[in-house]
This record gives sequence, structure tokens and C-alpha cells, in this order.
Amino acid sequence: MSILIRDALVLTQDAERSIARKDVFIEDGRIAEVSPRVPVEASYVITGRNLVMPGLVNTHTHLPMTLMRGYGDDLPLEQWLTQKIWPVEQRLTADLVAAGTRLALLEMVASGTTCVADMYFFEDTTARICREMGMRAFPGFSIIDFDTAEMAAEEMIPACEAFLRQWRRDDLISPVVAPHSTYSCSPETLSAAAELARRYDVYLHTHCSETRQEVYEVVERYGCRPLEQLEKTGALSDKTILAHCGWITKEEVRTIARAGACVSHNPVSNMKLATGGYTPLPELLAAGATVTLGTDGAASNNTLDLLESMKYAALIHKHHRWDATVAGAQQVLDMATVSAARFLGLSATVTEGAAADLAVIDLDAPGLVPLHDPVSQVVYAAQGGHVSSTIINGKPVMLERAFPLFDAQAVMDHARQAAHQLVDGRRYF
Amino acid sequence: MSILIRDALVLTQDAERSIARKDVFIEDGRIAEVSPRVPVEASYVITGRNLVMPGLVNTHTHLPMTLMRGYGDDLPLEQWLTQKIWPVEQRLTADLVAAGTRLALLEMVASGTTCVADMYFFEDTTARICREMGMRAFPGFSIIDFDTAEMAAEEMIPACEAFLRQWRRDDLISPVVAPHSTYSCSPETLSAAAELARRYDVYLHTHCSETRQEVYEVVERYGCRPLEQLEKTGALSDKTILAHCGWITKEEVRTIARAGACVSHNPVSNMKLATGGYTPLPELLAAGATVTLGTDGAASNNTLDLLESMKYAALIHKHHRWDATVAGAQQVLDMATVSAARFLGLSATVTEGAAADLAVIDLDAPGLVPLHDPVSQVVYAAQGGHVSSTIINGKPVMLERAFPLFDAQAVMDHARQAAHQLVDGRRYF
Repeated sequence: MSILIRDALVLTQDAERSIARKDVFIEDGRIAEVSPRVPVEASYVITGRNLVMPGLVNTHTHLPMTLMRGYGDDLPLEQWLTQKIWPVEQRLTADLVAAGTRLALLEMVASGTTCVADMYFFEDTTARICREMGMRAFPGFSIIDFDTAEMAAEEMIPACEAFLRQWRRDDLISPVVAPHSTYSCSPETLSAAAELARRYDVYLHTHCSETRQEVYEVVERYGCRPLEQLEKTGALSDKTILAHCGWITKEEVRTIARAGACVSHNPVSNMKLATGGYTPLPELLAAGATVTLGTDGAASNNTLDLLESMKYAALIHKHHRWDATVAGAQQVLDMATVSAARFLGLSATVTEGAAADLAVIDLDAPGLVPLHDPVSQVVYAAQGGHVSSTIINGKPVMLERAFPLFDAQAVMDHARQAAHQLVDGRRYF
Repeated sequence: MSILIRDALVLTQDAERSIARKDVFIEDGRIAEVSPRVPVEASYVITGRNLVMPGLVNTHTHLPMTLMRGYGDDLPLEQWLTQKIWPVEQRLTADLVAAGTRLALLEMVASGTTCVADMYFFEDTTARICREMGMRAFPGFSIIDFDTAEMAAEEMIPACEAFLRQWRRDDLISPVVAPHSTYSCSPETLSAAAELARRYDVYLHTHCSETRQEVYEVVERYGCRPLEQLEKTGALSDKTILAHCGWITKEEVRTIARAGACVSHNPVSNMKLATGGYTPLPELLAAGATVTLGTDGAASNNTLDLLESMKYAALIHKHHRWDATVAGAQQVLDMATVSAARFLGLSATVTEGAAADLAVIDLDAPGLVPLHDPVSQVVYAAQGGHVSSTIINGKPVMLERAFPLFDAQAVMDHARQAAHQLVDGRRYF
């Protein structure tokens, strides 16, 4: 199976940051050739005034929460969790998770995302759906100190180990250990999770310093801040994804950089939930830390559109620092593509030999005219709906806004049914 | 000419805030019937899983600046203006303004905007293009104390008066007097502009307290803050649109409410230009002031998408106040629709007899499934690209993503040429 993208504006996102019109030829999952004119035939040919860039990498989300999109907005975080989200989560089943995950992947593919680091319950189902729909994924098996709709707390470590063994040889799916957080996991749980991740040499994904309240509680209970707790329990390493980090200190910035861990910055969710904190982006980048982008779940965003998150990431820091030069377009684009890919051990440049994980943006849209600066255009003007094709592992998961590999209408219909089964409320359609 | 929207979810946005599935029948520019089943034929019929709401009203923009979209991003405001924007503006012509305005209107119509308050140069051209493309508009004739590419400073007041006389009887176009700001207009100029607006009973549109620097400079030069200067010169009334108000005091909030003026809040532009200030939204609403939304020009946004601006407006204040209940979805939707329409003397509810200015959102999109809360969905999940039809004054300006009244491809092509004529730089396509 091969794909040829003809005469597109290619953002290689390699060290040279080349931007030029070229053909891109994809074969057997890889980028076989990038040159001014590739003289071959292909199974699929994409033409038009397109921009080709590395696919977007979403490093923090909870895929099935699409089913709760728009459920309980404009509420204080505590009330939202205790009165809305948690009761609903107690009613989850594998089938509902499957329906919500399919919807999430459809939305992601439709907006140029080619790789996702998830963490939630029923993660084996999530992994299976990601495989089925062709999404490159790092599904995180949640470990938390209370019983969930899926299993009792004490079953989680062994079940996570079985999950790692089940998925660790897959070419598209990389299983992850996901202790929920330092406030919901005891030091013993964190240590066990960290030991598991080390033993299987897989990534560890956790929430860290999302809210001020969380930091305060962890300090009260354990006498140290969340990041220190992760460090003490062995959960902080160069394979750790730290979601949020909205309330970390300058010393913690240095600790993260030294450990080689990755921060997943989720500006839209942080702003919507009114967490107040600011992930210290300039300081993290100056310290050499890896900073990437996440949408968080659709219940607190309410989209899974990384193009939207890129713009929020750029704007929130400019405004906060009173400095328009902070969080420049190229920096933010790197966060959403190559920085995340590199951390996850993926090749994600548009160069020969790299895995073919690509997003194609249709530049023939009113909001993307004229084109003075392609990187600026992607970060400040493009939206999810401007993505016309998404290629993952060489497969045309979305091709000129159609979905050759699955029935998008059925995915939406099933998700509507699942959402109404899960959440009481008025049914409009 | 008539349009029938069949079985759509109608957000009336009248006092009852009714949300129910109904038919909407439009005839002769007005909404003729809204009921569960309208038994008529129509010139155009729109079916599908749609949401119908009042069209969006953009109360602050500079339409032709679409030509500078992405030109000079990530620069400090002062450098951006002096090195990038102002030199380019000196090269403007009526033809370039026409091309940029057409592109802006295309982008706006494609994202559900049905009415715009503009302010820029060559405003007679802008008014003509708005009329030609069917946009309801309040074009603001700029008055400023320096010569522009269009005319010398001393010609502006008489030229503005000619502009008012030319357009004041139009049913779609309402001419506006637009003194640029208190830092770029002397008190004499402001007084003359205000007198003109009063004499012709038209709206006055001006920038007010966008940056801290501006407030400081006006205080230094005139011994009073920008709003006080507007008040002293007679420029503050219940027909005044104040763009930005990011740096106003609680006392100024009361002054604005008392005057009955309208604040145009531009969160995306403020964040992108790193102005640092926060339009005091909760205080303004509590004082009973009219607050509306603007995108500002595409050069500082970089879109003209009010659906995007609604989400930014909600999120910026939640985050700033550490309170997720601030700037709720319904409040923000009102700002972008009925509040702005009421201030501008328009009917903008989806009710019988109202002017037919409507946006139709296609709910059959992955990012808009499921539908727990329609208002939340519009504010937090919908993006410009989800709008499928836009009706202005009863005309189908966009109909199921096609543009029956003009050639969208030609608009984009002309804008590309105009942009490259105006701005030097690499040409990618």
C-alpha cells in the first residue's frame, strides 16, 4: 500500500526546519521519498494546495471521556468531579469505553493527531480500539487507591502487569503504567507502579501538580511536594510523562530536566477548570526539559483538537508574561510534534525513512489565506477542521476528509447511544 | 426568496432561552415562522442534524488586515506596529482593501458571523464590499491625527461626514464614526468626531485602554485616563463601542455602565499581543454594562472566528479568577449574539418577525458528539468549521458549505495576489 502526496508544502520538522514544495511518497508504513518530483504511481494520490507536517502527538488525555463532553461545565472542579464525573465513571463498562474511545479517535484523526498517550479505566479495551482504528497509542493502565467500575484497587498492579505482557510486542501500541497521582496513590502504590514500569521498560504516566489544592494536600499528608514524592518512590525517570505541572517551582523545573522526564502541558483544560497555575514553559524549555502538549479529556476541554491547544499554549504564556515573544510558533509546533515524538522513541520528521505519521492541512480555506509564514499559520490560524488527511503508520486513516478504514457515521451513532446510556439528561437528537 | 430549515435544534436566544427541535421558515429577509412543522415549500431547504442560532456579531475588527495574517507574529507590540504593520499600511490602496475585505467576509460567513463592526482606512470601499457580499455591517470611518495612505489627517472629518451621508439610508450598512483612540487623536479631533456622530445619530467606535502603556501615555499627556478623555470630549454615549477595555478601573466600569456604552472584548488579540490586562467581565456584567465580542484584525488573532473567541472569552476569565463558574457558556453566547445585536438596534433572536440573521451548525461532526448541553457545545466545542450555513437578512450567504452568492475561490485567489503585492516575502503557493 502506497500514498503519494503531490506538490505539497512540506514542513520537515527535522533539524533544518526546511519548508518547501515537494512530493512525499509513502510505502510500507515509511516515508520512502521526499523530493521535488517523485515519478511513481501509488494506491492513493493526494493533490491540492496542501501543507504536510508531522502528525500531532497528544501526550495526555482520557479518551472515553468524550462521552461526557459538555456534561457539567462551568462548575467548580471539586463539584464537577464529585457530583458529575465520578458518579458517571462508576457506571462505565467496557462497551461504553469502546464507544467513547472510537469517538475520541475519530475526532483526533479528523484533526491531525497520529499518536496519543491515554490514561483511564478499561485500558485493555482502549488499546484494542486504538489498534482496530489504526491509532499509534501509549495506553496508560490506571492505578489508583480506590475501586473502580472495572476492578478492585488491589487487583490493579497484577492486572497492569498482564496488560503490559499482552501489548508490549505490538508495533502500534506501547502499553504504559499510569499511577493516577500522588494524592490518589499511596507511596507504596507509586513504588509498585514504578517498579513495574522499570521491569518492563515502559513509560509511566501520571498527573502532577495540576492544582494548588493538590500540592497543598500532598505536602500536608506526606511532607513533600508531588514531584518530590514521585522522585522518592522511583516514579520519576526519563520515561515519565508528568501531566499538567501547573504549580511547580523553579527547583522542580531543574529536577524534571535533570531526570529527563516529559511535561505534558494542557492549557485548555487548565484554563477551563480554572486551576490558576501556569506551567512554567519558558523556564522548562530553558532548562532543557521536554515539554509536550495534551488536550486532557473532552469533558474538561471540550475538544481533542491539538491545533486548538497549540494556539492556547502560545497565547496563555505571552499574556501571562506580558511578552509576545514568549512561546513562539516554532517552539509550540515542536512541542506538539517532534519533542513529543522524540521522547516517545518515535521518528516524526517528514524525511526519508521516518515512520509515515503525517497530517495534511488543506490551505485552500478562507482562514488560511494568505500564507506569509507557514509555521505561524499552523499554530495561530489553523483549526482541526482544516486537516484534510491523516496518515498513521503509512495508512490513510483520513483521506481528503473521508475515512476509508472505518464507518464514521456508525462511530458517532454508537457514541450518542453510549453517552445517553451513561449520563441521564435530555436527548436532543 | 425563502429558506426552510427542517427539524433543527433551535436556540431562540430570546428571554425564554428555549432549546427545542423545530422548523424555521424564512421569507423576505425575516423569520416568518418557527414551529414544530411548517407545511410550506421553499426556494432552499436545509435538512440534517443541525443547530440553528442567531448569527454571531463581531463588534471589533479591521477587515482588510486579513492580508497581513501571520505577518510579523511573536514580536513585541511596538516593534510589530512600527516595523511591520504601519509600513505595510502606508502601501494600502482601495483595491487591496477590497481584496482583503472580501477574504475577511468569506472567512466570517464561513464561521457563522452575520454582522460586523469594522474600523479601518478606505472604509467606503469596505462598506461597498460588505453590501456586495451581503454582510450586515457597521463600517467605521477612521479618524486619526496623522496622514494615511488614503488621505491627509485634515481631510478626515469632512470625508467622514460624506461617508455618513452616502450610507446612512442603506438597509444593510450603518456607517460609523471611528476616532482611532485617545492616544492617536487630540481632544479637538475627538470632539469633532463625537459631534459628527451625534449630529447624524450614528455609532462611534474607538479603541480604549488596550494596553497599560496607552493608559500611562494618555495620563501623562492629558492628565486623565482614556475613558475620562472620551467622556470629556463627548465621545462616550450609549452609541459608543469601546474596543478592548483591558486596563480599566472599577470606577470606569461604573462610568461605562452609566453611559450605556458597549465594551467589545477581544480576548484572543489581547492574549496574542500580550497586553497583560483583563477586561473586567464579571464586574462589567454585574454593573449592567453591555459586553460584546470582537476578534480584532486577523493580523493579531489570527482568525476572524467568533466561535473560537467565545471559548477564549470564557476560559481567560475562569483561569484568571481561579473560578470555573465565571463567564458561563450562556453569558458568553449572549455576548456574541443578543447583547451585541440589541446594542446595535438589531433583532437577533430566532423568533417570528426577527430579521433572519442565522448561523446553522452541523452537529454531525465528531467533535460535537454527544450533545448533553447545546449552549456548552456551541461555546466550548464548536469551531468555525462546524458552521454549515449562514443566513444574513434572509439570504443564504453560505448554504451547506457552498457560497451561492459569490465565487469563494476567486476571493481567495485575489486575496493571495493582493497580500503578496502588499507584503514582501517568500511565496509558497
